[in-house]
Amino acid sequence: MFENIDIESNGKDEKMIRSSASTVARKMLDFMESASWIRKMFEEGAGLRAKFGADKICDFSLGNPDLPPHRSFQRVLETVAADRSPGVHSYMPNAGLTDVRSRMAVQASRDHQIKLSAEEIIMTCGAAGGLNIIFKSLLNPDDEIIVSKPYFVEYGFYVDNHGGRLVPVESRPDFSLDIKAIEDAINNKTKAVLLNSPNNPSGVIYGRTELEVLAKLLKRASDYFSRPIFLISDEPYRRLVFNGYAVPPILRFYPNSIVITSFSKDLSIPGERIGYVAVHPEASRKTALLDALTLANRILGFVNAPALMQRVVGEALDHITDIKVYQRRRDRLAEILREAGYTFIVPQGAFYFFPRAPIPDDTEFVRILQKECILTVPGTGFGSPGHFRIAFCVDDEVIERSRKGFIRAMERVGI
Amino acid sequence: MFENIDIESNGKDEKMIRSSASTVARKMLDFMESASWIRKMFEEGAGLRAKFGADKICDFSLGNPDLPPHRSFQRVLETVAADRSPGVHSYMPNAGLTDVRSRMAVQASRDHQIKLSAEEIIMTCGAAGGLNIIFKSLLNPDDEIIVSKPYFVEYGFYVDNHGGRLVPVESRPDFSLDIKAIEDAINNKTKAVLLNSPNNPSGVIYGRTELEVLAKLLKRASDYFSRPIFLISDEPYRRLVFNGYAVPPILRFYPNSIVITSFSKDLSIPGERIGYVAVHPEASRKTALLDALTLANRILGFVNAPALMQRVVGEALDHITDIKVYQRRRDRLAEILREAGYTFIVPQGAFYFFPRAPIPDDTEFVRILQKECILTVPGTGFGSPGHFRIAFCVDDEVIERSRKGFIRAMERVGI
Repeated sequence: MFENIDIESNGKDEKMIRSSASTVARKMLDFMESASWIRKMFEEGAGLRAKFGADKICDFSLGNPDLPPHRSFQRVLETVAADRSPGVHSYMPNAGLTDVRSRMAVQASRDHQIKLSAEEIIMTCGAAGGLNIIFKSLLNPDDEIIVSKPYFVEYGFYVDNHGGRLVPVESRPDFSLDIKAIEDAINNKTKAVLLNSPNNPSGVIYGRTELEVLAKLLKRASDYFSRPIFLISDEPYRRLVFNGYAVPPILRFYPNSIVITSFSKDLSIPGERIGYVAVHPEASRKTALLDALTLANRILGFVNAPALMQRVVGEALDHITDIKVYQRRRDRLAEILREAGYTFIVPQGAFYFFPRAPIPDDTEFVRILQKECILTVPGTGFGSPGHFRIAFCVDDEVIERSRKGFIRAMERVGI
Repeated sequence: MFENIDIESNGKDEKMIRSSASTVARKMLDFMESASWIRKMFEEGAGLRAKFGADKICDFSLGNPDLPPHRSFQRVLETVAADRSPGVHSYMPNAGLTDVRSRMAVQASRDHQIKLSAEEIIMTCGAAGGLNIIFKSLLNPDDEIIVSKPYFVEYGFYVDNHGGRLVPVESRPDFSLDIKAIEDAINNKTKAVLLNSPNNPSGVIYGRTELEVLAKLLKRASDYFSRPIFLISDEPYRRLVFNGYAVPPILRFYPNSIVITSFSKDLSIPGERIGYVAVHPEASRKTALLDALTLANRILGFVNAPALMQRVVGEALDHITDIKVYQRRRDRLAEILREAGYTFIVPQGAFYFFPRAPIPDDTEFVRILQKECILTVPGTGFGSPGHFRIAFCVDDEVIERSRKGFIRAMERVGI
């Protein structure tokens, strides 16, 4: 006989719940269930590919950079791989290799126009790994993270993983920050405001003035609650900017700020999982925070960012992919969308358009585009129904070929 | 003014709690506090190094393989690094590269004497990443994972990360499984029994008979509760075995079993973070479980195991490091410990001794060894006070040099 410990049933039939979640965690079953619509959509895309041939499909659904890494990245990679010095593949401090962290500190200092040192850098398994260790380090149960819509769909999972709650707030019609909406969302459970700039999916860069106003708000709220409310800036697209736009130096505006970046997009190596977290040198209880981030890197199972790729990005961090190609595609796609009659904001960075869907139901419109062999993602997935996302990290030829489909889809909805 | 949402105070002064955990999560502060003794011990070790010179210290404290990877691993690494095919560094399915998963399935099929296919393999960020996605996929709040003492200290964190509770149970005097103790620990919250064989820190391999009895127990308990209780086997040391010992094929014994392994130890590449999870082909609700593992890999921030290293282990998985060196060290260290009068079990695999401390207080005895410039880890850290761990992944010369210190430490305690 085995022991039966009392379980609080919360009014539900616990035995029934136990049975349904008897193998896989309830929460994961729920996630899989709620993600089933997007899976279905991807399956439909795969079906189209099978039916018409992959070369007939214009797949704008994934933010997977198609450009090859820079040639000098390749040279560095081959040199690092040939290094047979003792210990190059060994365990290391959980925060990463000291010399690599020093180089990242130089980059972060340049990007943010303040002086950072190696100890303020934690090497991570990409930006996704970086965000997870930040939330693990910061969140008490039910703490809230405010994010401006539209936002990267994974943020909800990352915050939930560590017992927090993502609180999406409306942005202004041009997707810039609605400071009043953020202010209204701040309460005694707010731990941080999370920014993503250039933004996935909108392509918007938050400007200097909005950031100044946001910093003032966070300062005031921190004073009110007698504890820091953090500004977390997720910046994998910082260097993927067009027409000379620049992302303002976030760390300049607010001391309780943390930056995450990754080399996935600008070096075109998303499969290699490498990025870093940078903590403001004057952040509140900085040492405890850095210790927590380092411990989180260890106990969440990353242990350390991949050793070889740390060394590679340490050398190759400035060998970014050819942005001019993305700019050319952006310009051409803007022409096509304009010609077809879509309403959209021209992205200042990243590689996404986020046009308004010409009918209210964005999922329905994405299906209409599918009929034209064009694959996109509904805005609902980014907290902004009524829009759809076009990822233009695809060959110019695909963009050209999509022209008629975008036009016909517009005609189909009769606008 | 900002909103103050009611917080359940649970009888504590919430304002006080908020203030102490106002920057870093309470739980992480607690972890850092409770880990401070081991940190202190490492700092003392660093102090000894500074005082006497690193070459005077016999550092047996870390399980960081010191042998270089096999020459043919190096050749494969350089070939893979030179591959400039499109997409080699791109995103991929979250479970990993299909051809690599196929090769891992061949290995797992051989190791476990049942037929596995690529779909039953998830490539992971080492065994630590593998365990985290398993617990994320399986655990409902307060679910329990039973583990036999002594056990790898990180297990407690991994289970806690996902809302579960690690339940350590006693082993028998020879560190083999105490099936009665496991049976007594099983209750309606038990989700799995976690094994680590060869065991870190004891070096013990659980035998065929114990596994058969354990499998019968888990079958009976699963029937009793009408839901599967899983057997999770963490096996990074499977191929690091001595004197022709072999680790039994776990998946043969029990259908609801999941294996995690890593190439950290046998290929000597722990910094590269590469391993895999293999799910039994007949596991209960296998598809949901595999989907959950894949989703967990994505949302915990791993996204996918590092692309380049997936390709490398796909080719180099059998190019393991020279085990004969570890065996030689084990044999010599056994002689030394015997000569000095320690009581211990000769490890059958992995690279650790876990002798009994000659005084009840293992932490105190580790300090006595420190006075002899020998660094080890107290058994308390592995749930087994009264022992200490010696990691013999160090040069033969270090082992030779430690002889006098081990003898003198024994003399100091006057036994």
